[in-house]
Amino acid sequence: MMALSNPSPAALHSTALEREALALEYRRVRRFSEELARPLQVEDMVIQSMPDVSPTKWHLAHVSWFFETFVLAAAGAEYQPHHPQYGYLFNSYYEALGPRHCRPRRGLLSRPTVAETFAYRRHVDDAMARLLESAGARRLARIWPIILLGLNHEQQHQELMLTDVKHVLAQNPLRPAYFARADSPAASAPPPAWFQFHGGLHSFGYSRPHDLDPLGFEFAYDNEEPVHRRYLESFALASRPVTGGEFIDFIRDGGYNQPALWLSDGWAAARENQWSAPLYWHEEEGEWRQFTLLGDRPVDPHEPVTHVSYYEADAFARWAGARLPTEFEWELAARPLPLDGNFVESGAFHPRSDGAALDEPSRRLHQMFGDVWEWTASPYAGYPGYQPAPGALGEYNGKFMCNQMVLRGGSCATAQSHIRPTYRNFFPPAARWQFSGLRLAKDA
Amino acid sequence: MMALSNPSPAALHSTALEREALALEYRRVRRFSEELARPLQVEDMVIQSMPDVSPTKWHLAHVSWFFETFVLAAAGAEYQPHHPQYGYLFNSYYEALGPRHCRPRRGLLSRPTVAETFAYRRHVDDAMARLLESAGARRLARIWPIILLGLNHEQQHQELMLTDVKHVLAQNPLRPAYFARADSPAASAPPPAWFQFHGGLHSFGYSRPHDLDPLGFEFAYDNEEPVHRRYLESFALASRPVTGGEFIDFIRDGGYNQPALWLSDGWAAARENQWSAPLYWHEEEGEWRQFTLLGDRPVDPHEPVTHVSYYEADAFARWAGARLPTEFEWELAARPLPLDGNFVESGAFHPRSDGAALDEPSRRLHQMFGDVWEWTASPYAGYPGYQPAPGALGEYNGKFMCNQMVLRGGSCATAQSHIRPTYRNFFPPAARWQFSGLRLAKDA
Amino acid sequence: MMALSNPSPAALHSTALEREALALEYRRVRRFSEELARPLQVEDMVIQSMPDVSPTKWHLAHVSWFFETFVLAAAGAEYQPHHPQYGYLFNSYYEALGPRHCRPRRGLLSRPTVAETFAYRRHVDDAMARLLESAGARRLARIWPIILLGLNHEQQHQELMLTDVKHVLAQNPLRPAYFARADSPAASAPPPAWFQFHGGLHSFGYSRPHDLDPLGFEFAYDNEEPVHRRYLESFALASRPVTGGEFIDFIRDGGYNQPALWLSDGWAAARENQWSAPLYWHEEEGEWRQFTLLGDRPVDPHEPVTHVSYYEADAFARWAGARLPTEFEWELAARPLPLDGNFVESGAFHPRSDGAALDEPSRRLHQMFGDVWEWTASPYAGYPGYQPAPGALGEYNGKFMCNQMVLRGGSCATAQSHIRPTYRNFFPPAARWQFSGLRLAKDA
Amino acid sequence: MMALSNPSPAALHSTALEREALALEYRRVRRFSEELARPLQVEDMVIQSMPDVSPTKWHLAHVSWFFETFVLAAAGAEYQPHHPQYGYLFNSYYEALGPRHCRPRRGLLSRPTVAETFAYRRHVDDAMARLLESAGARRLARIWPIILLGLNHEQQHQELMLTDVKHVLAQNPLRPAYFARADSPAASAPPPAWFQFHGGLHSFGYSRPHDLDPLGFEFAYDNEEPVHRRYLESFALASRPVTGGEFIDFIRDGGYNQPALWLSDGWAAARENQWSAPLYWHEEEGEWRQFTLLGDRPVDPHEPVTHVSYYEADAFARWAGARLPTEFEWELAARPLPLDGNFVESGAFHPRSDGAALDEPSRRLHQMFGDVWEWTASPYAGYPGYQPAPGALGEYNGKFMCNQMVLRGGSCATAQSHIRPTYRNFFPPAARWQFSGLRLAKDA
Repeated sequence: MMALSNPSPAALHSTALEREALALEYRRVRRFSEELARPLQVEDMVIQSMPDVSPTKWHLAHVSWFFETFVLAAAGAEYQPHHPQYGYLFNSYYEALGPRHCRPRRGLLSRPTVAETFAYRRHVDDAMARLLESAGARRLARIWPIILLGLNHEQQHQELMLTDVKHVLAQNPLRPAYFARADSPAASAPPPAWFQFHGGLHSFGYSRPHDLDPLGFEFAYDNEEPVHRRYLESFALASRPVTGGEFIDFIRDGGYNQPALWLSDGWAAARENQWSAPLYWHEEEGEWRQFTLLGDRPVDPHEPVTHVSYYEADAFARWAGARLPTEFEWELAARPLPLDGNFVESGAFHPRSDGAALDEPSRRLHQMFGDVWEWTASPYAGYPGYQPAPGALGEYNGKFMCNQMVLRGGSCATAQSHIRPTYRNFFPPAARWQFSGLRLAKDA
Repeated sequence: MMALSNPSPAALHSTALEREALALEYRRVRRFSEELARPLQVEDMVIQSMPDVSPTKWHLAHVSWFFETFVLAAAGAEYQPHHPQYGYLFNSYYEALGPRHCRPRRGLLSRPTVAETFAYRRHVDDAMARLLESAGARRLARIWPIILLGLNHEQQHQELMLTDVKHVLAQNPLRPAYFARADSPAASAPPPAWFQFHGGLHSFGYSRPHDLDPLGFEFAYDNEEPVHRRYLESFALASRPVTGGEFIDFIRDGGYNQPALWLSDGWAAARENQWSAPLYWHEEEGEWRQFTLLGDRPVDPHEPVTHVSYYEADAFARWAGARLPTEFEWELAARPLPLDGNFVESGAFHPRSDGAALDEPSRRLHQMFGDVWEWTASPYAGYPGYQPAPGALGEYNGKFMCNQMVLRGGSCATAQSHIRPTYRNFFPPAARWQFSGLRLAKDA
Repeated sequence: MMALSNPSPAALHSTALEREALALEYRRVRRFSEELARPLQVEDMVIQSMPDVSPTKWHLAHVSWFFETFVLAAAGAEYQPHHPQYGYLFNSYYEALGPRHCRPRRGLLSRPTVAETFAYRRHVDDAMARLLESAGARRLARIWPIILLGLNHEQQHQELMLTDVKHVLAQNPLRPAYFARADSPAASAPPPAWFQFHGGLHSFGYSRPHDLDPLGFEFAYDNEEPVHRRYLESFALASRPVTGGEFIDFIRDGGYNQPALWLSDGWAAARENQWSAPLYWHEEEGEWRQFTLLGDRPVDPHEPVTHVSYYEADAFARWAGARLPTEFEWELAARPLPLDGNFVESGAFHPRSDGAALDEPSRRLHQMFGDVWEWTASPYAGYPGYQPAPGALGEYNGKFMCNQMVLRGGSCATAQSHIRPTYRNFFPPAARWQFSGLRLAKDA
Repeated sequence: MMALSNPSPAALHSTALEREALALEYRRVRRFSEELARPLQVEDMVIQSMPDVSPTKWHLAHVSWFFETFVLAAAGAEYQPHHPQYGYLFNSYYEALGPRHCRPRRGLLSRPTVAETFAYRRHVDDAMARLLESAGARRLARIWPIILLGLNHEQQHQELMLTDVKHVLAQNPLRPAYFARADSPAASAPPPAWFQFHGGLHSFGYSRPHDLDPLGFEFAYDNEEPVHRRYLESFALASRPVTGGEFIDFIRDGGYNQPALWLSDGWAAARENQWSAPLYWHEEEGEWRQFTLLGDRPVDPHEPVTHVSYYEADAFARWAGARLPTEFEWELAARPLPLDGNFVESGAFHPRSDGAALDEPSRRLHQMFGDVWEWTASPYAGYPGYQPAPGALGEYNGKFMCNQMVLRGGSCATAQSHIRPTYRNFFPPAARWQFSGLRLAKDA
């Protein structure tokens, strides 16, 4: 990824100020992981409810392992790993780093305990603090981009901590809330409007600033590069995401029972898994309810629908006489917009209806960032000229470029500082446990 | 089972002494469950490492549910269940009591937490204490046998708590011990000797005393009754169980690779699960080691081999030119012996070599009780005239009378007060996570 | 098995007459296999509809391989195997004879073709004819019991050919009949009566005649020996098997939906496989119909119910307030009866109501032999002192003595010359594709 | 698809000549299916060796069902379907046409027999002949494009008949050849050369001629349309496909054991399925051999490697320091080339080394058409503006646009008249039983 290029001479003149800024950002991101764990009981942090889900304490340890392995151990012989087997236990998928604990068995590990996991975090954080204080300019320039990557990596796992523990709690007939809080008053969603975009040859992808400060916080993943041109036909994009109410209409119209609306693989997945509504939805005496991080509550017809698979998003779009946008259509539309929305910092932990939009339904695109990740029609593939980073860190993105679809825009579980218009998230088309929703598009 | 017959008039004259004795026994058994949980971390008590295994906290709750359901709720309307959904969560398999949480998903429940589980136990214990204090003679006589059953039931789960958590800890590459302690010095096992028994028509099964004290602690399960006659041919029984050292000989001789030694289903199970040694054994630089509740340590060649399936026991016996005894041969031989041995109360948590036996190898049978459950050649079936109890409690034993083999004698995880010569344990022939071993027999 | 003992001196005086008798019997049995295949199309003989089922052409080849391997190849170097790889393809489960084609993949073999399979049979038959003509007295005495075993083995596979091809044809929505024929007029089943039997010490198992003619056709399998004593309690046996009509009553009464009637494993199997009636039954406009070898037709309420698992038989018996007999109760009752009934030679290919019985419902037990195999409550195990034959032929019976239940009496697909009162058939408790039914028993 | 637009007025002036031409083409294509079946035994045509594979007789029936359903039955009430249940049995995946026989169970159908299947074909062919003779101009114009589609559909199934029966025969330890023939003398493959292509904005997809003869034979699938523009970067393409010899180098270099070379899903598939060479390859005494339609023979190092999955193709390319081309790079390069190569008409039934190329390795691209389908790096998706046809025929292509990769160029099992530069084949990335190979590309 971009951050792993050689340090330029300028980077060698690091100042105490920059050192301090990085240490501060490190502490900020690390502390937020622990804050997210605070509402949980020890027992909640141990469980793996399906192979895709990892226990909270595994997340907390794995992100620490990342710094231990790629920064501390790489930085020199003076670092003592906290435990000789944690490398085995907390490597997620880096084949280059040797064997590792099998993913679907993460929930079988009672040890290290939660307390030991936090001790591991402190051990790493202390060593990182010492390193940041003591590193010479050359070393700082070398580790800077890796630390930046590590912090972004931890932010990704913060989002997974929330979506994973939601899945864990949802298995429980007691339906415990992650965070108990009174609901905010519901607002109405505006009627959807269509925005037109002109086709033509456009540039896409992350454009690294020429004067990139090597000791700054500007960041993008390797899969957002290189910048390249694509020819788009003219298209239209809906002013807001599809809502829960619209999805109820789809269900009532028999959307889950009409094979003509579905991709072949989608129809098979829906039959096999007996899908008849988004994940976490259940019908009770004629009312659609959903399990949320705030507990069980009615589906708000005005909030963006979430926890739908690509297959459901695609079927809905077909039912609505529209289609999903490509990731490039989405990026073109999102580029000029301000980076605000309902992110994890709002503490809502759930998509919200965008009440403010009532006043101005047709003036601008709403909720492009935050609330729900938006499935696009684009299979996840490398951009022309894409090159993964060398070594173990190169396993970050490229090796997943098959059988996955791109999602854009971030969700209510994403950190605001983590997202940008070129950001490419990706999941297999049957995945439903992320905060994934959709926005309609059509040919102009 | 026997205990559920109608109370005789004598039972109505219960005295304060008997009341007190039962309350004492109740507290004794209940407290022991909690003592067994004491060495564990909260995290250890949450995990289900395979469908057969239940989390410690599930065991602790389920045995309480038994008293809540069959004693407290049955006793009258004045009892308030601790939680409206615990009946759903902690019913193990009683179909008559309605739907229940799916067994393989017990490990997906983070709530109730361990602390809440202990609070549930206290709630039940308090109600039980009140009931025992206040119950009139008639009611006491009615609930007495059910409480006795509940206490024996809890003792069974105490054994499962140990074997289940052993399986949980064994999944962990850190190989944490349940209970860390220095090993006792090893003693040698005596060479095996054969004891001859004469055939003929014998009686088997639990013989209820004619003057059974209805408010006493004499107890047996329904599957041990009725007493009935069987004709046995003459046979010989080995003086002691097969040892770890003898099992290593079997392995070295290629026992796991000779299909002629195995039952057809056994061979298939061994191939499918890639068995090449007892469960928890692993070879390290030419030495056989095993994971125990006391941590990882070498296989003691003098201790009884354990964690073998019926299939392995049967194959070993064939390899040794012998066979497994029937449960009736075993019972005939065990009946006159004293009920002592290495039980859970010894705190060894593992089978031991029987050093004392060195002096008298051929004088008596050794280790018939305790150390390891002994697989018999008898499929688990009802005795002639067997009748399960009516109602939900009748689901205790009879409905498992298919596809299981009988084991006899108790193990190092069994409570001494729980075992007797007529006691019939049963497991499917592929089960290995119990403390199961074997003793050889042959035709006389 | 009994037949494999050393030839006595008497055996050495074989006469031309005995030679001729064996050759005749050989041709008779072998020809019958081919007659059973005659109604089939080539395509029918290729298919394996589940792992338990083998294609007809595999059966036809496998029984020939038995003679080739155990008689012809064993007899001396002069025999040339028909094809070097047929040993690999047509060994069923004899581990001692080396690797073999995986059972569930028998339906993937288009070659040898049906025509080539028949050519293989002719090759073996010709060699067998030459051997029987030319063998000296000593050799004849040695191969005689193996040939007898081979013929009994082929009769077993004749029954499987019918039950297997029934399963194959039943998969086809076109519902093709194996043998199209008008139904015989239905007769009524007599009301059931109970026959009492006195308990006591009895002998069971096959008793080899003292003056057994070594070159005669008397035969039993090793699992029917040795003769041994057992003590039975008094019991009663129903006069006839349970009928289709009685089973419909069980269904109507919700028998498949009452867990209290079922063994735990049975309930699980019934749920998992969605059993709601015997195999091959389906309800059409309120009428129960069944697929038979004669095509689709209504369930005759008077004919013995068939294609039920042990679990269903056991649940029915419990529903009826009775139980299944043990195999020893059955044997005691069957021993004095004449060996007649509805066998494969009748050409009915389906159980029949026993109209004649109307006149004499309470005079004798009906349909003990033929019509349907009767599930017993006895797990399949070796008799006291049981020893399998040495070598590969010893794999015939003993290695299956686990997880199976004994059935007695033969069925409408069994050859009359193949059955006897001591005959022990065995299948796993969930098996339904054999002609398996049940007869009720109860404690006297 | 294009062919299904309304008939233009011109189409109404159909002449006897055009009628005759279509009847001739119909007979030509239909007869070729039967010729491909000729070398097979009846038994070969019944077997389904994995869910992806269909029995030969199913293919022969299904393609007839296509004409029966979409042409004959649609044409009017006068047509009598050959059998009322064939619609159920031979519908492949058209949800709009109602329920159908489950795909993985096609191999469980012995009936209709092969003979009955051929009778079905004759019935359909006779009705088609009558229809083509008698149809008025308006009707002919309406059915013409559907018949054209049916013939192309049948050609696709001709290719599958070969690849499917190859998989069937390969399961058989007897390793029977589809077609026995002496090998042609091997020729050497030229060393690979690179051809450069300039980037820029290009048009792709099938361009329907303005003066398309509505009663002509010009044809393309809907997924090749519409024509649209794309911007390509400059790239280079290898002069010929990767050869068996080059693939052996990859294997010898440990290509199957280096996770860094593989996509994550590819590595998982390779582990799970234990891939260590292309499908049908096996090593014998140090020599790589392969099962082909002509029987077992050595891997020719000069012939294009085939039966590799997308994952293997992708890993090979990475190992070789190159990548796979996108489908657009391939199309740009293929467009000007003559449409010749080793197609099914050659009777080779296997890719061949391109001996002629020796003289001119660097003059032109070799083997772009025929020999092996070439995996591209392009996920299968609709072109901008893509619209499937309405109704059941619209299920032909669009609903598979997920989780599949595009292959280009046709193979030794493709009919020459079936292929064109814009033709898009597609299979899941793990599929190996097609004649799939690869050609390298790289950034210019």
